[in-house]
This record gives sequence, structure tokens and C-alpha cells, in this order.
Amino acid sequence: MKLSRLEQQMHFIEEMDQLKKIGRQTYLSDSSRKENDAEHSWHLALMCMLLQEHANEPIDPYRTMCMVLIHDLIEIDAGDTYAYDDAGNQTKREREVKAANRIFNLLPKDQAVYMRELWEEFERAETNEAKFALALDKIQPTMLNHASNGKAWEEHEIKISQVIKRNSSTKEGSEDLWDYALEHFIEPSVKAGKLIEDRQ
Amino acid sequence: MKLSRLEQQMHFIEEMDQLKKIGRQTYLSDSSRKENDAEHSWHLALMCMLLQEHANEPIDPYRTMCMVLIHDLIEIDAGDTYAYDDAGNQTKREREVKAANRIFNLLPKDQAVYMRELWEEFERAETNEAKFALALDKIQPTMLNHASNGKAWEEHEIKISQVIKRNSSTKEGSEDLWDYALEHFIEPSVKAGKLIEDRQ
Repeated sequence: MKLSRLEQQMHFIEEMDQLKKIGRQTYLSDSSRKENDAEHSWHLALMCMLLQEHANEPIDPYRTMCMVLIHDLIEIDAGDTYAYDDAGNQTKREREVKAANRIFNLLPKDQAVYMRELWEEFERAETNEAKFALALDKIQPTMLNHASNGKAWEEHEIKISQVIKRNSSTKEGSEDLWDYALEHFIEPSVKAGKLIEDRQ
Repeated sequence: MKLSRLEQQMHFIEEMDQLKKIGRQTYLSDSSRKENDAEHSWHLALMCMLLQEHANEPIDPYRTMCMVLIHDLIEIDAGDTYAYDDAGNQTKREREVKAANRIFNLLPKDQAVYMRELWEEFERAETNEAKFALALDKIQPTMLNHASNGKAWEEHEIKISQVIKRNSSTKEGSEDLWDYALEHFIEPSVKAGKLIEDRQ
């Protein structure tokens, strides 16, 4: 049975409901439970709306917002890979490309191509929009980890060197936001013993 | 203590994390649990991205997307009012205006004004953008209610006349989406006995 364009779109939108069930390692600010990918993506879009003036270079806010809204859709098939899971990160790209091939192709051709390009642009982190989107994606969990009293960092025994390495490209999207995260979220968490100090 | 502009913005973004804890009556498509406002807002933004071609009139997609992302923020203070809760809906506007006065004013003045205007525009439902945003806000729960086998409708003993009345303005945003929802989500739910038939 050939689906109409609108049927294809609505089937996709209904299937993407599953993003609400893909769990992340980050706790909500009140520590009550971990957040999921849909909530995370919403939070990044809100940040994009309010923080775009802090991007290092001018960005197209609509394109950036679309990027953060869809950047985790492939995790419906590929699952969330924790930032500090070294083994998982070795197989991440392969799992995610396979997921992208299936998921985006549920859409009408033109929209499948658009979504795939947006996702690849985010992954490559070369354009101003992608650099800023990536900075938001890195800073949002540091904000929640700090607000939740370092709960996820403590559970995984994360070291400050890992957080610094993980954020090596954050300042390419926004020096202001990286400086802020370092001063307000990360260093205070080291001082409070929530992140392990392993710098010389 | 006077906060810097970025501090004000980040405090706001952290406080808005609470949207993830504002529950709605609609179940996820797999019926496993009810969705929350942050997940709902994300879903509407994805719909805006993919379905804007079905708006009755041309829309500014970025403005519409911002509108759906923030339309429920006031529920952090005012709570979610179920669509078919008549008593709750009588006090809704008053509770929400009070919430808007507090919440949006946490932001730097220019952004507080921008957010308030966006929210009021959504509430008035007069512009093309607001009409389309409202149509998405109404159609998304019919999609999930149908996918979850009418669970929320059954629990609340909802009648088809209530759904039709609730959606009286949906077709002003998009006739295509309203026709689709009626044919694919609503009428099949009446046939399956999930919505009570009370039409003559």
C-alpha cells in the first residue's frame, strides 16, 4: 500500500514518540529521576532560543533549533551512549548510521534528505550552527549535573579531566557559555568533591 | 545582588527544567505512562518542522516553533488543566496570567517581553502562526490517544461531541490536519467504542 505524503509524515511523528523512552544518564535538577531524550531536546531548543546571542559567530536560529530537536532521533534504534562509556563510544558511529538509514527514510524523500543532512551537519560540528548546537548539548548536562548535586558524576566516578576532554570543542561554539559552565557548574563541583580532581 | 544577563538567562533555563515534571492526561503511544509538558512541547516542535506545509496560510516556522516550545511554561506555576475539566478551565486564565507575570519576568527585560508576547499571541489564536501552533497542540493528543487505544478518553469517559467542540478552531490552523485527525484518529476511536458516540 502506497502511503500519502501526510500519512508518511504522521506515521513518522507517531513513531518518534519513542524518543520519550530513551533514557539519559543525567538527572533532573531536583535529582528525582533521570531525564529522557525528548526532554533533553526540548531543553536544548529553549536554550537555543534564549542564548543564541552568546554564539561565537552569527547563527541561523531556525536551522540550529531544528538540529537540536532531531539530533538524538537515531537513538530510538541506536540507544543513548553515555558520554564516558569508552567501549560504547567505539561502536557508536556504526550503530547510529544504521539507525539514520532506517529512521530518516520513513519520511518523504525531500524531508528524509533534509533530516539526514541536518543530523550529519550536527555530527561533523563544522558549521557555526552545528558548533553552537554541540555547545548547548554539552553545557545542558553540566548545568543539570551541578543542580542535582553531582549525582550522575558521583555514580560514575567521573574525573575533571574527563569533563574537560569531553568539552574540548564546546568553546568553539561559545566561549561565553563554556566560561560560564566552567565557573558556575564544573569548578564548584570539583570543590564539593562531586567531580574527582586529577589535574596536576 | 544584581545578576548578569547571562546569569539571569541560565537561572531561567535551569528553573524551566520543572516543565519535565508537569504531567498531562495523554498517554504515550505505547500506553506505558502519561507524557509531560516538556515531551509534549518537543513533539509539537517536531510536528511544526515537518507539517508546516499543511498550514492553511503561510507561517514563519521559527516563530511558530518558539511558540510551541514555550506555550506551556506557565504551567510550572499554574499546573496543567485537562482539556475536559470544566471547573478547572473556569479559573485557568487567571492562574496562568499570574504565572506568566512571575515566570517570564525572571528573564532580562527584552526577553521577558518577547516571551510574554509569544505566549499571549498563542493564547489569542489570531495570527497564522498561533492558529497553526494551536492546531498542532490539539492534534498531537488525538494522535497519542488513538495510538494508546483511547486509554485517556476511556478513563475520562469522553464523548465525541466534546472532542469536536474542543477542536472547533483546529481547522482554522490546518484543514488538512484536522481532516486527517478526524478520519484517522477520532472516527476510528468512536467505532472502537473508546469515545462515546453522542451525536444525533
